[in-house]
Amino acid sequence: MTTLAITGGQVLRPDLTVTAADVLVDQDAGEIRDIGPDLADDADETLEAANSLVMPGFVNGHCHVAMTLLRGYADDKPLEAWLQEDIWPAEGELTADDVHAGAQLGLLELIKSGTTAVADMYFHVPEVADAVETAGIRARLGHGIVTVGKDDEVAREDANTSLEIAREYDGAADGRISTAFKPHSLTTVGSEYLEEFVPKAREAGVPIHYHANETENEVAPIVEEHGQRPLEYAADRGMLEPEDFIAHGVHVDDREIELLAEAGTGVIHCPASNMKLGSGMAPVQRMLDAGVTVGLGTDGAASNNDLSMLDEARDAAMLGKLAADDASAVSAEATVDMVTRGSADAIGLASGRLEAGAPADLAVIDLEAPHLTPRHDLVSHLAYAATAADVRHTVCDGQVLMRDREVLTLEEAAVRERALEAATSLVERVDT
Amino acid sequence: MTTLAITGGQVLRPDLTVTAADVLVDQDAGEIRDIGPDLADDADETLEAANSLVMPGFVNGHCHVAMTLLRGYADDKPLEAWLQEDIWPAEGELTADDVHAGAQLGLLELIKSGTTAVADMYFHVPEVADAVETAGIRARLGHGIVTVGKDDEVAREDANTSLEIAREYDGAADGRISTAFKPHSLTTVGSEYLEEFVPKAREAGVPIHYHANETENEVAPIVEEHGQRPLEYAADRGMLEPEDFIAHGVHVDDREIELLAEAGTGVIHCPASNMKLGSGMAPVQRMLDAGVTVGLGTDGAASNNDLSMLDEARDAAMLGKLAADDASAVSAEATVDMVTRGSADAIGLASGRLEAGAPADLAVIDLEAPHLTPRHDLVSHLAYAATAADVRHTVCDGQVLMRDREVLTLEEAAVRERALEAATSLVERVDT
Ligand SMILES: [Zn+2]
Ligand SMILES: [Zn+2]
Repeated sequence: MTTLAITGGQVLRPDLTVTAADVLVDQDAGEIRDIGPDLADDADETLEAANSLVMPGFVNGHCHVAMTLLRGYADDKPLEAWLQEDIWPAEGELTADDVHAGAQLGLLELIKSGTTAVADMYFHVPEVADAVETAGIRARLGHGIVTVGKDDEVAREDANTSLEIAREYDGAADGRISTAFKPHSLTTVGSEYLEEFVPKAREAGVPIHYHANETENEVAPIVEEHGQRPLEYAADRGMLEPEDFIAHGVHVDDREIELLAEAGTGVIHCPASNMKLGSGMAPVQRMLDAGVTVGLGTDGAASNNDLSMLDEARDAAMLGKLAADDASAVSAEATVDMVTRGSADAIGLASGRLEAGAPADLAVIDLEAPHLTPRHDLVSHLAYAATAADVRHTVCDGQVLMRDREVLTLEEAAVRERALEAATSLVERVDT
Repeated sequence: MTTLAITGGQVLRPDLTVTAADVLVDQDAGEIRDIGPDLADDADETLEAANSLVMPGFVNGHCHVAMTLLRGYADDKPLEAWLQEDIWPAEGELTADDVHAGAQLGLLELIKSGTTAVADMYFHVPEVADAVETAGIRARLGHGIVTVGKDDEVAREDANTSLEIAREYDGAADGRISTAFKPHSLTTVGSEYLEEFVPKAREAGVPIHYHANETENEVAPIVEEHGQRPLEYAADRGMLEPEDFIAHGVHVDDREIELLAEAGTGVIHCPASNMKLGSGMAPVQRMLDAGVTVGLGTDGAASNNDLSMLDEARDAAMLGKLAADDASAVSAEATVDMVTRGSADAIGLASGRLEAGAPADLAVIDLEAPHLTPRHDLVSHLAYAATAADVRHTVCDGQVLMRDREVLTLEEAAVRERALEAATSLVERVDT
């Protein structure tokens, strides 16, 4: 057994208590073997964690990593105008190579901010999968389907691509890659395609992930056309199973919250995207109270504009209080739980908790900073004060991806340079 | 003339365009002398700014720096309960030495996040002033007055202290310290004291700063007792002059927004504090549209929980869109303007813009980071993606306070250690 020891740190346990302990990792199995005193002696590799907090790696439950190429490309617009006037035209110009460059940049940012797993929806998924394999993180990937405005043949091809990708890449990268069937949303994919392909996704044994109830404009057309709330409509089409997860869930009513809780379908809350696009405030505390599994996601970098899950946690805690009109809502504890275990549970990973037998996916946070002083409550610091730059080491599947802020799996300068060139060329193509 | 050159950077101009230029600083006058090509040749001191953005230092328009000692001490509670059950009892135990330790920690964090000026309201102000003098930043200081629940003699003494402090420290630290008369709020200071002391503050020639319209609970009692909205009440008591500035302004109606615009009284918007305490959403875009001078502030670290103005800018842009129900509201440009020039104008400083003759108060942001790649729009990056750790150098009044993340005016490790000890001892005293 090859082992990695993370030594001398404070360890955040699944019950959110913190104790001084070493963490011993079985690198072959990619699992945590033990947590306790004096475990470092015979380890093959060591990560120093003095004055640091050892915690589960963050899980980004909803992202479009390659959209880093469009970070800052168009801001300060509502969802529909932003997509139609800016994002979709730019995405129309993205080559497979661009997507690879953007995905590498996004994954670099994820590793630097302590994120060890991501659920990603995009196109040119083979390039995203290749980038994930190299980067070393865990990912649930899928091809996003849009059928509106397309001929039937093209639409069916898109849905087939999503199904094929989900089948082909499930278990790739030594099991670090899992997949899902990913209709973009309930309004951008026609019901006939959902009816045809959802059963095929079930046969393939992959979960279904889609945007739902993000804006009022996504709710009204479904109510109008089908006489049902969007999640009732989704449930009737077999898209609300325990393994499935939706992104956003901003405009959900009590019946829909109940449906989510009963079904065990996860909700990935994306507070930054919801604020930046003016989509609204998700009723996170109400969902938690109802027993819904809620995780957090950044959405794409173009609507955030960063991929730090510590930012997302802070946003979730802040916005959750406003949404509930109650400062005790979405507490620091609830938030830290959502950004680790909640997201992992929602997207169907065993990560998100540090305990023997769990996947060795973890982040080590440097506590020696003015903004993390004093130390009345480390969970509060995680929710409200820590930032991406405080992450010192990142470990996924037992492998060290970042050591003392140096990413080992990707060449940072080269990845940035390539993305800069791809973005510059993209803008030139869109403008002509 | 002793000079400092900031060389090879991209410079953010007052119109928010960005141009490649050097910045030449007259260190004796503490002013920017010139911005343009090739200004570095004979400078006495140089700051390297290649691949960096040279911008006005951030201005924190409302803070209680010494409250860093209470960071994470009590979270997830609404304003009144949080103050009465947690913050006030803890503050009751704070010694002058504690306030000095907390202020140093807060100022260290401000410098590390590129903030060059702060408006601060607290007690033991001589200790805060001493910490400011050493730290080298610019500050408008004042003693916060609370009269409710106090004997007349004690209340008058508190108001007199605020007046005396404002007179004594105005112009201290070679002019870096200015002052204000600071009633805590319109509900925590009796009207008889406002009526007596506001004219004295005017005679002393200092502005007036207070919390106003932060929660609904601050509005209702004034409407009930005086039959006026809080800012009408303030205007009638002479507290709404062009040099004055209020903190929060969350629950302001159209008439009050008009009063603020007509008077030229500044509003310091504290989005993080307003979200965390569940206070509500300030109508920032409506205030900007009405011509109100709006700046940003962190409020104390206990309700934020950090003092980064880049976090505050992001929060302001995000929350402003929700408040306006419009994703185009509180744009990146408006936000960057608020966090620099807006705050400076509101608190009565000439800082907040880089141009010849302006105070040499600036921050240099390192752009070589995954989360700041690509570079479609640097103003967007400032509003949405940059964080405190991206700040490379901080300069105030022509003096380098931080060079390549090393703070030169304060011993970082010693300041953190002292604050940690003070906070630990404080908790022990409160608990017994
Ligand atoms: Zn999305
Ligand atoms: Zn305050």
